[in-house]
Amino acid sequence: MKAGGPAGAVTLGIDVGGTKMLGLALSDEGEILAQSRRASPHPAATAAGHPAAVHALVATMGELAEELAAGLQGVRALGVGMPGLVDDSGRLRFAPNLPAGDDLDVAGRLRGRVGLPVVVDNDATCAALAEWTLGAAAGATDALVVTLGTGIGGGIVADGQVLRGAQGFAGEIGHMVVDPSGPLCTCGKRGCWERFASGSGLARLAREAAHAGRLGSVVHLAGDDPDAVRGEHVSAAAAAGDTEAQSVLDELGWWIALGLSNLAQVLDPGIVVVGGGLVETLTLVLPTIVRSFAEMLEGADRRPHIPIVPAALGEQAGAIGAAVVAREDRRGPGAPTSGL
Amino acid sequence: MKAGGPAGAVTLGIDVGGTKMLGLALSDEGEILAQSRRASPHPAATAAGHPAAVHALVATMGELAEELAAGLQGVRALGVGMPGLVDDSGRLRFAPNLPAGDDLDVAGRLRGRVGLPVVVDNDATCAALAEWTLGAAAGATDALVVTLGTGIGGGIVADGQVLRGAQGFAGEIGHMVVDPSGPLCTCGKRGCWERFASGSGLARLAREAAHAGRLGSVVHLAGDDPDAVRGEHVSAAAAAGDTEAQSVLDELGWWIALGLSNLAQVLDPGIVVVGGGLVETLTLVLPTIVRSFAEMLEGADRRPHIPIVPAALGEQAGAIGAAVVAREDRRGPGAPTSGL
Repeated sequence: MKAGGPAGAVTLGIDVGGTKMLGLALSDEGEILAQSRRASPHPAATAAGHPAAVHALVATMGELAEELAAGLQGVRALGVGMPGLVDDSGRLRFAPNLPAGDDLDVAGRLRGRVGLPVVVDNDATCAALAEWTLGAAAGATDALVVTLGTGIGGGIVADGQVLRGAQGFAGEIGHMVVDPSGPLCTCGKRGCWERFASGSGLARLAREAAHAGRLGSVVHLAGDDPDAVRGEHVSAAAAAGDTEAQSVLDELGWWIALGLSNLAQVLDPGIVVVGGGLVETLTLVLPTIVRSFAEMLEGADRRPHIPIVPAALGEQAGAIGAAVVAREDRRGPGAPTSGL
Repeated sequence: MKAGGPAGAVTLGIDVGGTKMLGLALSDEGEILAQSRRASPHPAATAAGHPAAVHALVATMGELAEELAAGLQGVRALGVGMPGLVDDSGRLRFAPNLPAGDDLDVAGRLRGRVGLPVVVDNDATCAALAEWTLGAAAGATDALVVTLGTGIGGGIVADGQVLRGAQGFAGEIGHMVVDPSGPLCTCGKRGCWERFASGSGLARLAREAAHAGRLGSVVHLAGDDPDAVRGEHVSAAAAAGDTEAQSVLDELGWWIALGLSNLAQVLDPGIVVVGGGLVETLTLVLPTIVRSFAEMLEGADRRPHIPIVPAALGEQAGAIGAAVVAREDRRGPGAPTSGL
């Protein structure tokens, strides 16, 4: 049997991030048959009257089709994960991390151009669905899946269903205010959780430490410019045993734990899965997260332990989840019907 | 037909608060057939080896039975709402607002003494169930019900079910940290939402304002002692047109809105219901809550309006909900089966 196999056996999923787009073709058996990666276009760019993001999605789909032996024959649908509030019709309503994405009818613009059913959903909800279907939260009836990248996204499984909310906007956990006098956020508020506990949060914590005269060797890594310090520099130094760098990661871990304990009190998950771009740093941060979470969770010593585990699907989680959402051809709750 | 009617027609519900206990007998038609009220015993008090709270529950039940024409004949079950983490077996695991309640097997201690099935649940979950069944959230598929009293409790309805979580502990919204450098909480953390947005939060905000030299007439109401200022003094002065008092209520409203917008982003409710002891003050605070909520909710102008409305069942919500939980004889999710 050729890759792409019989009609209905393959679904495409594309995850649109702030910096890169990852597309893949997923078989009903959970196999990845094709993959395509490109830089995300500048959010404000347009071409021929369409946002560049739409062109890039179509181009990614074309690349996947080329890689599949049967092309688009036998491809059932296209799923797209986007950062921000995506309504039930597939329109991106609000995207603080993708400025020109506000009020973009992604599904509508794609449908006419791709000749396939198109389903658009929130990227973190896609990642959560993937981890719940095929990854670290498989089998859980109540789970919280947190995606730590440039910002923070979330997906919630409650009583064996993806929690969607009244409009499909549930899981916007990154803009939970945890310090009203904290730094300004892209959303306009102050002290959102993602200003502390994301990749950009780590960079900010690191620059603050660098300006305070800590992190000497990390600043050296960054060309002796405190403002050029990035999260990767801190992680690299900490991995090499730099205790000042590790203390910045501990601070990051404390903020991650604060938000996780807030959410665990509201949702009472049986498991917490942490993924996203920051997951590479997670082994250095996880011990602090676990310890601080236990200190902060209400009644932690009177309730069963809530495991906090790394995501299993890595950077593919969002694209796999987008394909799963599209395969099910719905944005409703509930686990996928096929076995995988 | 006598009150108490045929077998199975009546359920008792008792709401145990930090300061008072309210019991009632609820008919299957939603009628309140009897009512009993008493001060909550001191949490640390015991009598004959049992916590005084257990004696008080039994005594309340006895009063309800006396008031019912048929006594306990025809009474199906007893439901009890308690503040804190109540597990699925009816054991109170952790109760920061009821110190000696920690690890008290309320259901087990009552079962042997009352000759009725006993179901124990979180008080705010009971109140939410009541508002969803008979009150301000009736008909909603996604709702957030917030109880502002001495502390803050919450109940969540998601996709037509009460969200319980893995252990039945969901909805503990009061201990969400919103300012890590804020005042110490009864739970041991700093800056929990209920330190700002509850009855005790109002009193604290008012005392701070009084010590800062504001609130002259309110301090006078409190016998010229800034430390004696209570929330009622502020509400009374604001209702009489005192602008300094109103500005303290506006501060309270801002903190309430901050927590509500955090939760609305996570849960995306179709409606938010606010009840509890602080509800008397709500007419003075609601305009600020609504305005600040719209300012803080992510993408508020890109999504349907989320109404914030006062609870409909007043101080009886918790006891009515406790009866509803017991009538359904379960702690699982889902709407009550009977019509009401």
